[in-house]
Parts: sequence; C-alpha cells; structure tokens
Amino acid sequence: MATAPSKAATALPAKQLARIREQLKECAASLGGEVSARARAAQLAETYLGLDDGGRHEFLRLIALEFGPDPKRVATAHSAYQQAVGSPAQWDAEAALRAAMRSSRIRILTQFNAIPQGVKFLVDLRADLLRFLDKDPELKALDRELENRLTSWFDVGFLEISRLTWQAPAALLEKLIQYEAVHEIRSWKDLKNRLDSDRRCYAFFHPRMPVEPLIFVEVALVNKLSDSVQHLLDEDAPTADPHRADTAIFYSISNTQVGLRGVSFGNFLLKRVIDDLKRDFPRLKTFATLSPLPTLRLWADRNPEVFAACFAPDLAKIAKHAGIEPDADALRALLPKGEWAADARLARLIEPGLVRLAARYLLTGKSGDKPFDPVARFHLGNGARVERLNFLADTAAKGFKQSYGMMVNYLYEPDDLEANVDAFVREGRLAAVAAVRHAAKG
Amino acid sequence: MATAPSKAATALPAKQLARIREQLKECAASLGGEVSARARAAQLAETYLGLDDGGRHEFLRLIALEFGPDPKRVATAHSAYQQAVGSPAQWDAEAALRAAMRSSRIRILTQFNAIPQGVKFLVDLRADLLRFLDKDPELKALDRELENRLTSWFDVGFLEISRLTWQAPAALLEKLIQYEAVHEIRSWKDLKNRLDSDRRCYAFFHPRMPVEPLIFVEVALVNKLSDSVQHLLDEDAPTADPHRADTAIFYSISNTQVGLRGVSFGNFLLKRVIDDLKRDFPRLKTFATLSPLPTLRLWADRNPEVFAACFAPDLAKIAKHAGIEPDADALRALLPKGEWAADARLARLIEPGLVRLAARYLLTGKSGDKPFDPVARFHLGNGARVERLNFLADTAAKGFKQSYGMMVNYLYEPDDLEANVDAFVREGRLAAVAAVRHAAKG
Amino acid sequence: MATAPSKAATALPAKQLARIREQLKECAASLGGEVSARARAAQLAETYLGLDDGGRHEFLRLIALEFGPDPKRVATAHSAYQQAVGSPAQWDAEAALRAAMRSSRIRILTQFNAIPQGVKFLVDLRADLLRFLDKDPELKALDRELENRLTSWFDVGFLEISRLTWQAPAALLEKLIQYEAVHEIRSWKDLKNRLDSDRRCYAFFHPRMPVEPLIFVEVALVNKLSDSVQHLLDEDAPTADPHRADTAIFYSISNTQVGLRGVSFGNFLLKRVIDDLKRDFPRLKTFATLSPLPTLRLWADRNPEVFAACFAPDLAKIAKHAGIEPDADALRALLPKGEWAADARLARLIEPGLVRLAARYLLTGKSGDKPFDPVARFHLGNGARVERLNFLADTAAKGFKQSYGMMVNYLYEPDDLEANVDAFVREGRLAAVAAVRHAAKG
Amino acid sequence: MATAPSKAATALPAKQLARIREQLKECAASLGGEVSARARAAQLAETYLGLDDGGRHEFLRLIALEFGPDPKRVATAHSAYQQAVGSPAQWDAEAALRAAMRSSRIRILTQFNAIPQGVKFLVDLRADLLRFLDKDPELKALDRELENRLTSWFDVGFLEISRLTWQAPAALLEKLIQYEAVHEIRSWKDLKNRLDSDRRCYAFFHPRMPVEPLIFVEVALVNKLSDSVQHLLDEDAPTADPHRADTAIFYSISNTQVGLRGVSFGNFLLKRVIDDLKRDFPRLKTFATLSPLPTLRLWADRNPEVFAACFAPDLAKIAKHAGIEPDADALRALLPKGEWAADARLARLIEPGLVRLAARYLLTGKSGDKPFDPVARFHLGNGARVERLNFLADTAAKGFKQSYGMMVNYLYEPDDLEANVDAFVREGRLAAVAAVRHAAKG
Repeated sequence: MATAPSKAATALPAKQLARIREQLKECAASLGGEVSARARAAQLAETYLGLDDGGRHEFLRLIALEFGPDPKRVATAHSAYQQAVGSPAQWDAEAALRAAMRSSRIRILTQFNAIPQGVKFLVDLRADLLRFLDKDPELKALDRELENRLTSWFDVGFLEISRLTWQAPAALLEKLIQYEAVHEIRSWKDLKNRLDSDRRCYAFFHPRMPVEPLIFVEVALVNKLSDSVQHLLDEDAPTADPHRADTAIFYSISNTQVGLRGVSFGNFLLKRVIDDLKRDFPRLKTFATLSPLPTLRLWADRNPEVFAACFAPDLAKIAKHAGIEPDADALRALLPKGEWAADARLARLIEPGLVRLAARYLLTGKSGDKPFDPVARFHLGNGARVERLNFLADTAAKGFKQSYGMMVNYLYEPDDLEANVDAFVREGRLAAVAAVRHAAKG
Repeated sequence: MATAPSKAATALPAKQLARIREQLKECAASLGGEVSARARAAQLAETYLGLDDGGRHEFLRLIALEFGPDPKRVATAHSAYQQAVGSPAQWDAEAALRAAMRSSRIRILTQFNAIPQGVKFLVDLRADLLRFLDKDPELKALDRELENRLTSWFDVGFLEISRLTWQAPAALLEKLIQYEAVHEIRSWKDLKNRLDSDRRCYAFFHPRMPVEPLIFVEVALVNKLSDSVQHLLDEDAPTADPHRADTAIFYSISNTQVGLRGVSFGNFLLKRVIDDLKRDFPRLKTFATLSPLPTLRLWADRNPEVFAACFAPDLAKIAKHAGIEPDADALRALLPKGEWAADARLARLIEPGLVRLAARYLLTGKSGDKPFDPVARFHLGNGARVERLNFLADTAAKGFKQSYGMMVNYLYEPDDLEANVDAFVREGRLAAVAAVRHAAKG
Repeated sequence: MATAPSKAATALPAKQLARIREQLKECAASLGGEVSARARAAQLAETYLGLDDGGRHEFLRLIALEFGPDPKRVATAHSAYQQAVGSPAQWDAEAALRAAMRSSRIRILTQFNAIPQGVKFLVDLRADLLRFLDKDPELKALDRELENRLTSWFDVGFLEISRLTWQAPAALLEKLIQYEAVHEIRSWKDLKNRLDSDRRCYAFFHPRMPVEPLIFVEVALVNKLSDSVQHLLDEDAPTADPHRADTAIFYSISNTQVGLRGVSFGNFLLKRVIDDLKRDFPRLKTFATLSPLPTLRLWADRNPEVFAACFAPDLAKIAKHAGIEPDADALRALLPKGEWAADARLARLIEPGLVRLAARYLLTGKSGDKPFDPVARFHLGNGARVERLNFLADTAAKGFKQSYGMMVNYLYEPDDLEANVDAFVREGRLAAVAAVRHAAKG
Repeated sequence: MATAPSKAATALPAKQLARIREQLKECAASLGGEVSARARAAQLAETYLGLDDGGRHEFLRLIALEFGPDPKRVATAHSAYQQAVGSPAQWDAEAALRAAMRSSRIRILTQFNAIPQGVKFLVDLRADLLRFLDKDPELKALDRELENRLTSWFDVGFLEISRLTWQAPAALLEKLIQYEAVHEIRSWKDLKNRLDSDRRCYAFFHPRMPVEPLIFVEVALVNKLSDSVQHLLDEDAPTADPHRADTAIFYSISNTQVGLRGVSFGNFLLKRVIDDLKRDFPRLKTFATLSPLPTLRLWADRNPEVFAACFAPDLAKIAKHAGIEPDADALRALLPKGEWAADARLARLIEPGLVRLAARYLLTGKSGDKPFDPVARFHLGNGARVERLNFLADTAAKGFKQSYGMMVNYLYEPDDLEANVDAFVREGRLAAVAAVRHAAKG
C-alpha cells in the first residue's frame, strides 16, 4: 500500500532526478518488451513510495511536463482531420488525431498497475497529485489523464456491492472505523451496534482493492422518519425487528478514497442498496436520509443579514431569556456552543428562526449555480427531495458547531427521481416539500 | 451473453432507426441522471442483441457517425492549445483539447457495461464491429475508441491467472473444448488427459468475465524437447512424474475473444506461467513451445521458386521414388496430402528440403517488416528464439495441409528475452540457433 | 482413496501377519501417546491398501477376533450391573458395563481416520468387510461396530445437501456418471441435459468426503405425472420453463457408497429436496417419482401361477396375435424381449394383464413382512403411496428385462407421509390409490 | 445457540413433565418415521432451551433414568454371549449383546442434532449435565453415553486447523477475547497485537460449529526462550521479523467448550501447529511454552512445611529486609501480593527459595498418581519436558496471586516426545532438565 511520505518536502538531488527521467523514458518506450517494461515500472513505483513530498512532486512534474503529447504532431494530425471533415476519410483522420494526442504519461502510469496493489497505488498517487495541484496548476493535464483512467477503471459496472456485517474480516471493519466521515465510530462496540440486525451497512469494492471499501453507507431500519442521530447511534437502545420497519434511514455516507475525486458512484450505491432492501424487507415504504448541514454555520457567518432576518421576529425574547444583547451577532455567537439547548424554553424560542434559516440556506444558498451545501448537492443531484428539517437532531459538539444542531431528511421517492434530476440539472430547480418552502419564506 | 445474430442482414425500418437514434441521444445526454441513463442503456443493449447483422451494422454506424466529437469545438480548443504551448497555460489547454475530443460514443458504450455480463457484451460487440469494419472503414474511429477502452479495462494488472484442472467447473472446461484453436480437443477424455498430473493448463480471466478464459496455454512436463504433437496428445501414453521433468513444452496457446483483437496479454501469460512452473518444479530447466507453422504451405504456394530451390538437390530422387513428375510443382501438390509420410525411405528423401524450406520461411518470409508466420511474430516478439525444426511432428491432416507436417520449437531463455525483444523490435533481427540459420542457407 | 485390491486372494506370510498383529497391539494400547499412535495407524492403513483380497480378509479377521472385549471382564461388570439394578448405583454400574464392552477394534479403526481421506478409507474398508462377511460370519461383531461408528459419523445432521449443476467441478460430475445406478448416463452430453434448467440434481455430502456424493437424486420439472423415462431423458426434447411446471418427478435415486449399507439418509434427502423445490418453484403441486420395478420379472418367474392368472382373460388372443403357444410360460418368455412393444395392437392386448401383474406384485409381493420390491420398500417406508402404474414406460433393454417395460409413480403427499409411515411400519399397510388396488384385484 | 438458562431452579409442573415424557417416547420410537421424529426432536430441543436450571435437570433425569437399556434384555443377551464364547457363534452373540445395551437415550440426543447448530446444542447440553452431575450421580450413565458420542463426533480426524489472523471475521475474533483463559485479552488493540506478523494463533474447528473455536493456541516467534509474559504481550514492543526467529513460544492455550470435557485434542493441535510452523519458518529450532503454574500457591498453602523448608536458608534475611516476622507463614502471606517485587534487593533474596518451591511443586506435587499442576499434566502427558523456571515472569495481579509470579517453560523436543510419553504413562516419570531437578533438591 502506498504509505504516506514524510511531510518534509526537499528537492531531489540532480543525479537521482536524472536517473528517474532515464527510467521513465525506458518505460515510455517499453524497451525490452512490455513484460520487462512492467518489471521496471514496478521498481520506479517503489522508488516513488520512498520519496518525501518534495521528491514526489518533482517526480510527478517530470511525468506531467516531459511525457505529454508532441504539439507539432498534434498540429499536423489536427490539420489533416479538419480537412477530412465531411469526407469518408474523416473517421480515419479522427483516429489519427486521437493517436497523436495519446501521451506517454498514461502509458507510464498504467505500467505502475503491475505492482501488487497497483490500483491502490495509483489512487493514492492521485491523492498526492491533488494535493500538489492546488499550488502547481501545471500538473493539470496529468491529473485529468489520470482521472479519466481511474474513471474508466472504476466504472460502476466493475464495482461489487457487499453487505458488511459483524462476520466481515476485522481488518476490513477496522477500515470503517478509520474512514467514517460523518458520525465518528467511537469503539468496536459502537461499530458492532451499527451492524446489528436492525442496521445495514453496504459498500462498493473494486475487484483489485478487495479490502478497501470505496464508499459505504450505514442504514437504520426504523419506523417513521428519524429526527435524531444520537437516538440512532445509542448503543443501549433495544434492537428493533427489521421486518416490521417501514422506513430505511441512510444516516451516514462516506467516500474513502481521496484519489478518486471526480469519480462518482454514490448515486449507484444508493440505488442498489434501495433495491436490495426492498427485496429483503417488502414492508419498507420510505427511503430517506438523516443528513447533516455541514456548512450551515459557515454560510450564516457569511450572510449575517439573512441570519438576522430569520431571527428578527423572536430576537428580543430570545435575548432576554438567554441573557445576551438583543443583537443577531450575539445570537450567532451563542448558537454554536449548544448549551442553550438544555434550556427547553429557550430552545422553543430559537426553533422557528433556526428552521427558517436552515430552509433558506438549503433552498437559496448557492455556490455557483449549485446548492451551497455539499450534501444537498449530492442528494438533490440524485433526485431526492428535501423532506423535513429537524431541530436539535445532532446534539454532538460537532453538530452544534457546524449547524447549530439542525439536520435534514432527504427523501428518495423512486418514481420522482428522474424528473427531479432533470429539473435540478436543467433548471437548477430544487425538490422540496411545501412545508420547507413555506419555512424558507416565513 | 451476446448471442450471435441471424446472418440475414436487413436494413432497419426507418421508424425503429429513429427511435434508436433518440434513445442514443438520451444516453449521451444522461437525461434523468446517470442511474436512469444506465437503465436505458441496458434496454438499448437488449435491442442490439435482438437485431440481425444488418441491423447491428446500422446501429453501430449511428454511434460511429453521429456521436463523435464536434470538429468545430475541436478546432477552437486546438487553436487555444497551440497558442499556449510553451507557456504555463499549455497544460490546462491540453486538458481542454482532450475534453473537446471526448466523444459521446464511448460514453454510450460504457453505459452498456451496466447490463449483467456487460463486459462480455462489449467484447462481442467489438467482434461484430471488426467484421463490419472490413467493408465499412467509416467505423474506424469508433473501433479505435472501443479498442482503447477495452485495452484499459483488460490491462494485465486486472487479469487473474488460474490453473485449470479437472476440478474446475464443467461449464468452464467445456469452453476449452470450444475455444481450443491449435489442436482440437476431441472428447472429454482427451480433455481430462490434457489436465493430467504431468500437464498444466493456465488461463487469464477478467474479474467480470469469470467463466470466460481470455487466453489459455496447455503445457506438457517432459524430458527433452518434444518433437511430435501426436505423442504429446496420446491418451494411452503413461503419465510421467512431473517432478522429474526437465522441460516444459507449451504445445497450444489459444486466444478466445475475437473482440479483443489488438489487446495483448499472451506475453504476460507465458511469463507468469514460467514463474509458476519454476516455483512448483525446480528441476525444470527448459521452457519451449512445440508450435505449428500455420502458413508455411500458403507461403510456399506464393513463392514457388523458393520451394523449388529448397528441393532442387533431391528432386529427381524424390520424384522417382514417389512416382511423380520430376517437377517442383508436382511435389508441392503431393506434400500436403501426407500419404508420402508412410513411406519411410521417401520421407528420408524429402526431409532435407522440407527443413530447408521451413527455415527459410521462418527466417526470411515477411509480411511488412514482420515475420510472415503469425506464431513466429508472437514468440519472437516475446524474445523467444527459433530452436529446432521438427520433421513429421504434426501428422494430423491439418498438419500436412498447413505445413507438410513440420513444427518448430521456440525456446524461452529467460536471460535472453529482453535483448532478443530489442533486437527484434529495433532491428527486425530474428533470434535463431545456428543450426536453423545454417539450414536456411543450405 | 482406497484403491481396489487385486482380486487374487493369497494368504499373508506368517511373518507379515505377526508384524501386523504387533502394530495393531501398539495402536490399541496407544503406546507413545495418541499423536504417535495415529501416525502408526496411518502406516497400517497404508499397509492395508497394499494388500490383496486375501490379505485384507486376514487383516480384518485379526482385528475382529483378537481385539474384541474380554468376556471375563464383561461378565464381572454385568454381574455388578444386575445387582445394582433398582438402586442408585445402577447408573454407575451401567457405565462400567459399557466400558467393559468397549473393544479395541473400534479404537483401532478410528485411528485410521487420521490418514488423509480417512473417512473414505473406512467406508471402503467396510465395503471390503461386507464382501467377506457373506462367507465369514465371524466378522459380524466387527461389522456391527463399524456400522455403528459410521452411523454416528454420517448422522444426517452432519450431511450437506448441494445442488449439482453444470457449474460443478468436472471431477465431481464424473462421479455421477460412474455412480448412476438406475438409468445409465451415456455421455457428458446426456449428463449436461440432466442438469438443464428444467432439471435439478441434489446430493448429500459429508464434510470430510467433499468430492464424493453419498446419494443423489435427479429431478425433472414437468407438467403432469411423467409416464415415460425415455421421454424424460430425451436430449433433443426442448427445455421447458421450470417456473411453469406443476410437478417434480424424481426419476433416479442412487446410493453410491457400498460401505454405508444400513446407514440411511435417502428419506432426509427427499424431504429437503422437496422443501428446496417448494421454495424455488411455488407453483409445484405434485412431488412424485417415476420408478422402476426392478424385481417384477424375478417375482413373476418365482410365482408363475400369479402371472398365469393375471393374463388368463386375454391369453388366447395374445398368443394368437403374437404367434406363440397359448401358454402363460410362453408369454413369460416373450415379454422380457421387448419386440412385442413395436406391435401396437399386440401391446394393447398385453397391457391389462401386465398392469394387473404389476399391481399384485407391488401390493402383495412380500420379502418377509416387507414389500418384495426394494424400491417400494424405500418409498412406502418414507410414507409415499403407489399412485399410478405406467405401461411401456421404460423401453430400454434393461427395462424390458427387469420389468417388461413397466414403471410406477410413487406420490409424496406431504400431509399424508406421517400417517402412511405409521400404517406401514406398525400394520404393514401399503398406501396405494384405489385404481391400483382395483387393478390388483381385477 | 443454546442460551444460558435463568439460574432459578424450579421444578417442572407435573403436566409439562408428563408431556415431555410423552414426546421423548415418541422420539425414542421414531413414530411417523425418522424424518418426522427429527422434526419433533427439534421442538423438544427448543423446549429444553426455554427451561430454567431446575427444569433442565428434570428433563435430563427423565432421559437418563427412563430411557436406558432394559436390564432383563441385557441379562438374556449376556447369558447367550457367555455361552457362545469360544465358539463361532461368539461374534454374533457379541453383536446381539451390544444391541441390547443400546439405549434410547443416545437415539434421542442424536435426534437433537437436527436443529440448526445442533452440535453446539449438544455440547452445551453436556455442559449443563456436568454441572448437575456433581450433585446427582444418577446422571452418570447418560453423561458417559453423551461423552462417547461427542468423542466420536469430535474425532481429531474431523477437526480443521485454521490460522486465525486479523483477516478473520470479527464475530470469530470476538470469541477469542471471550474464551481466552490464561492471559486476558484486554481490548481489540491487544488482540490485534497478538495476531501481528511475529505472532501466530491457531485453532481447531468442527465442520458443524464453524464460528466456534474448540481450542486455540497463541504463539510468539522470538529469539531464545521467553521468560516474561508481560514482555510478550507488550503492545508497544516493536514487531520482530518472524523469519529470523529461532524459537516458537506457546504462551496461551485455551479450551473453550466446557461440554467437551474428556474429549482431548490439545496434543494434536500442538503437533500440527509445530508442523505448520516448521514448514513456514525453517529457522525455528525450539518449540516451547511459557506456562503458568496455576495451583502453586494452593499447593504451598496445603503444604506449608515444604514452603518453610524451601525458604529456610534465607528466611531471616528476607524477613528483616521485608519488615515481617521471621516466620514462613508471614512470608507465605506476603508473596501473593506482589509489592515485594518492586524492591530489587528483596526480590533477589526471595528468588532462590521460590525457584526451589516451584521445582518441588512440579516434580513432586501429586494429585493421585498425576502431577498436581494441571498444565504440567497436559504438557508432560504430551511428552514435553520441564525446561526452565522463570522468576517474576508473570507480574500481573493474577500471576502473583496464583503462583507468586513464577512461570515455567515446557520444551517440545520432537525426537523425545514418544519416549517421554511412555515413561510418563507407564512409570509416572516426569521429564525435566537437570537444573530443575537440582533446584528441587537444593
């Protein structure tokens, strides 16, 4: 497995750099045949793993800048192609242009696939690349080529869905603890509780990365829409009979491989999980999430006037009860701390404004032409709709800090998904129930 | 599985064609989201399977000609790219040009991967495409795109090598009988004999085509280089102790998937089989083939003067003994029939000329700058060398018909492979032992 | 695997016999600890495999006669037991008597279990034992001890039911060809046909004999009760849709291990197969066999007066049409040959008598207090009932030879099985439909 | 799985008892056939699981006392047997006597095997039985029959050895934590450390109890004999390269199934583990344990005069340094507490006496004619020898409490095992190195 480099970022000695360049050239030329070339590529991959961040950056720059296509050859092929357009020769010319565009970069990277766990190596190499890319945009062509290759290799048709249970290898379950990105798994006992008979956990795997879940989703089989994640994760709560459940709640979805950014399969995973659950539990009627609003507070801080407007009707009462200045900024400072939630009467005063704020955030907050909230982008992009906002639904410290304790249910209504996707993609229209639309306006 | 179409090749009704075009457009645009698009693509794939040859051809032409890149968009991106060359913007511009080149064709084809056994479907679709391509070169751009995608998907890093034994599923072993391309497997008894303890059979598999061997090789563990394939395949021959063998003979290598033309992995298979055999049988010293010369007769018929020259010294004696005209053409007509082999004295007379002919054929026969013999192209391209020519080594009817009963051993000498590959690729130099070189000149 | 000994039956040299006796004593005493004793037992087992029939017989006699319990120790323990009966000491005394009865024989045999495939070795050893037992009743105590041990080891709770398909290992399917005892499997094509989608084949396996089916049953999924086995086995018949079938026909049940005589599991296999089929094919309503009457002709030859009585009404017409003497013996000689079946009119004349004969045979033919027909013993003992007699149902040579072409359907009516078993076991009452009872009387 | 009964021990209502008796009779008689009988037995097994301790006891008494053999039938068969002794009829008569001894008890218990996890059910039922047996010796005959049946079913030839790694199912590894009987596994981190690359863990499994290890052994691959279990279990110690190790230390062996008392396989497990390790690590030269002396303190308390004698030479100095009365009893009270170990000088004073005590305990302490120490009984019975006594080798509270911190290495010297076993079994001779013998005398 690609181990993390030491963070130090020193430049490579010129001699070593020259040797790497030479080896890359040999790989690109496949000297001595494909079989030998792969053997050499494996050595080069080992070299890469031994480098620190600075060395890896230079290594990748070498590939990015010196092993691209030849612009002159591209120009010639392009000119022939444009002349052929409209004639029967167009298609041959197109193939020739495509051949001229083919770079040695991807040839070299593909050869790295020869090492054991080569796919995981390339995914991790891409993670490195993405880190460097922020400050070094010249790596972009290489990144795009690698992203395309990974998109091809991780086509959803190749992925295997597996249900993970307490019978799964400990080495695999340990990865869930490590990768869980939404609600931290605190212990093996917590993990076992999440795999209990009224729970389901599904993951996608690639046949060449057998103990690395690519993405996984945790599901609770319950009655009625859940409105509290702490309740779902309570290890001492009794186990319910899943065959009497009417609702499946997706309460955590985690992508695990940074290096697969831009390669999407979450939508397919949900589709297949819903199909699987329907088959096993015919009484299930509702498929929904209990999702965080991870950037609600960030957005509120950037849009203090919206925050103030949402709380205007109740601000005076809240301030008096809470013992703060009757000032929206003071309230904004108070809410992330969470202590206010212990005071039931205060909470009741805060609730209307907070629901209003969350509704506006979801329905009007934008990043470009997409929703500001990244989780909303994913679920609305899949065709789900905003079903319900839940006050005091995540009372963990992180929950208050990110979203003042608010959570949201996105509902997957199989018959509406296609139309919702189209409305979302073409018109940017967001699916939401009337109550939430109303709250946003109220 | 992609079933063979009825051979009739009728045009599609205009209405059906229009509907298919519409569906392809929807796939290309991913209307309703990726998940729905794949579901529609699956229906389209089913439609394809129901078409006859003519219908399939039109279907593929539609994709090839109407879903390619937009030449204008390509021109714009290319122009920006050429202007950026040498500046830091080059790499972004390259990525943009590459994006402009990306066609909907491959997007559509990839979506077909969603059907069960989707990979096999695309491999078989390529087999159709290759058939149509002969007469319809406008399919070339599509074919190249599909070939590239299959090359990416069938990267050797994804393939699994398996040893096939009598313990393998009958449904899988049946495929060996069906696909064996060199020496026909006549019965289950013949097959069982080829999987006996002094034999090995290895195949490459793709994780998504689990009961489809992509290529397989049959190996006999023997003492000394084999010089007769009938002896190797004799079901009544006693089973030898493989742990005392010093030589592994690869006596049959069969590619099974027409649709993977241009995607090579035979060299990797041999490499891994040799590694595996060395580990299991440390006494093995020699790794060699016993290979046919499938186009020897074809080449001789095209080069009658070479044939005549090879037999000139002995022609008179041969003709007298065989009772034919003392004429090279008469001899050329006699040899493919094989009856002459029963006459030991006649055979002795024929042998020197035939060995000479085979040596010249191998070492001087060309197709372009490559050897004329396709099997030689493969093994010499892998770095093997021509080790020995074997007279009356394949006395089956097909053996006489194709190569007058001659066979050849190619030797895989691990230490020489790289140098041989380089000499072959760069200088077109063929590796052969002195005896064979001498015979070619003699 | 226990290979068959050469049939020659020579006595063991005295010296070898003495050495074997010594080794058996060491095993019985577990000298050097259990671990060493097993290692020595393994050598002894190898010795056994190397012996011819005579040697094996002597080997087994040694164990049978010299390693039994000590009669004096048994007498003492028995006397103590009888005195303790009725007192609290009875149970301790019973355990002591049981300990005195424990022989070294079974200890030795169990140690043989240590060799690889030890279970199969013991099953095959029992097959040897049964062969010798016919002529050497002194082996009986050993045979019973071994039978008890095998009964314990092959308890149905340990057996695994598996569905065998064309995906099963060839080495396993080959065993079906070898073991099929009812309707010979003629070729791999015949076998594949019997595993087609409208067929099922199930077998019981022991976890320590993984490629040895213990018993297997072949099932056809059809509409209506089958009345012809040739029709069922027709390789060219179209494959039916099993999901539309209403009837499962068990047309062949084969026990494979001679050494497991007396260990029964056929009834459990049918029970579990029926459960499995019901789950997979809810439309199935009828579970029945199409069974041979393997000893019909034998019984008729032993009871010529019954035969004569059955055919009396039609004998004159039959004889005239067939051109034989109007004599029941002549008819008895004619029927096994089968040519008469080609003459439709003659067949029509013969049918009533033959059905009558078969009905009487089934319902009145006895061996002790059980049905004479071994297949009837099995199915009626399981609670099935005689449902229908089928004329010209097995027109293979063996079918005519054994039963004049007659076959029978036994019906498994789940709700009646228990009551039928009790009636059969307690009162010897046979379950049969009225039509068959009527035929028997007619 | 057989769940633990509530501890309350109430008598069964007469009505329920009568119904159970009736059901047991039906099982014993196999009314309605074997298949139905097993179905009824399964219900009875469920009934058993629902009973509390008192109910289970009565249930088992029913089987024990009312379903045994018929003493009169036994008497008759025995008399016939004794008369036949010496004649050819002996063997038939022996089989008949054996049949008369066969009880319905074991028939009933075997039928319980039909429930899912039936084997585990019977093992747990035996655990119940052993608990009741202490106070109710009338259960003995039943217990012995069940022990015999379990001995037959758990024959080592049926057990599978598996190496347990971090790749094993979490549900299985959780069992290790639960069953570890020697050195408690404190956490999943501790467990993972015990499965690291310089560790091995092996277990025996029965094919019908797939996630229940029957016995497992933990091994450390080290250099030189280990003398401290805390060092072995240190999670922060660096992982050693197992391929450079010369010694395998078995530091924990745990039997897991109370119900299998009297069924032994620990010796076979060690034999197979040693074979496996030798194959994987050819450099291993020494196979030894690091074992507790679990009853050292108990024995010392029972033999205060031996204790006093061992410490006599140093008692005055020890007492002075430790600040206790110069009295052996005071020292015996001090040692289990362990604080003295922190004082290096005091520890040095105590060491000679403690080593002497441990040596005498091991070599002279007896329970009947076997060693007093249960671990010694096991290892010396397997042919190992006492190799070294280790002072302050287990400094956990339990270590001081049971054995004043002492541990012992037993050495498995393959070439000596057989002779040692024989000396142990026949003459009660204990294998020990001279140094230990010397210490015992000193």
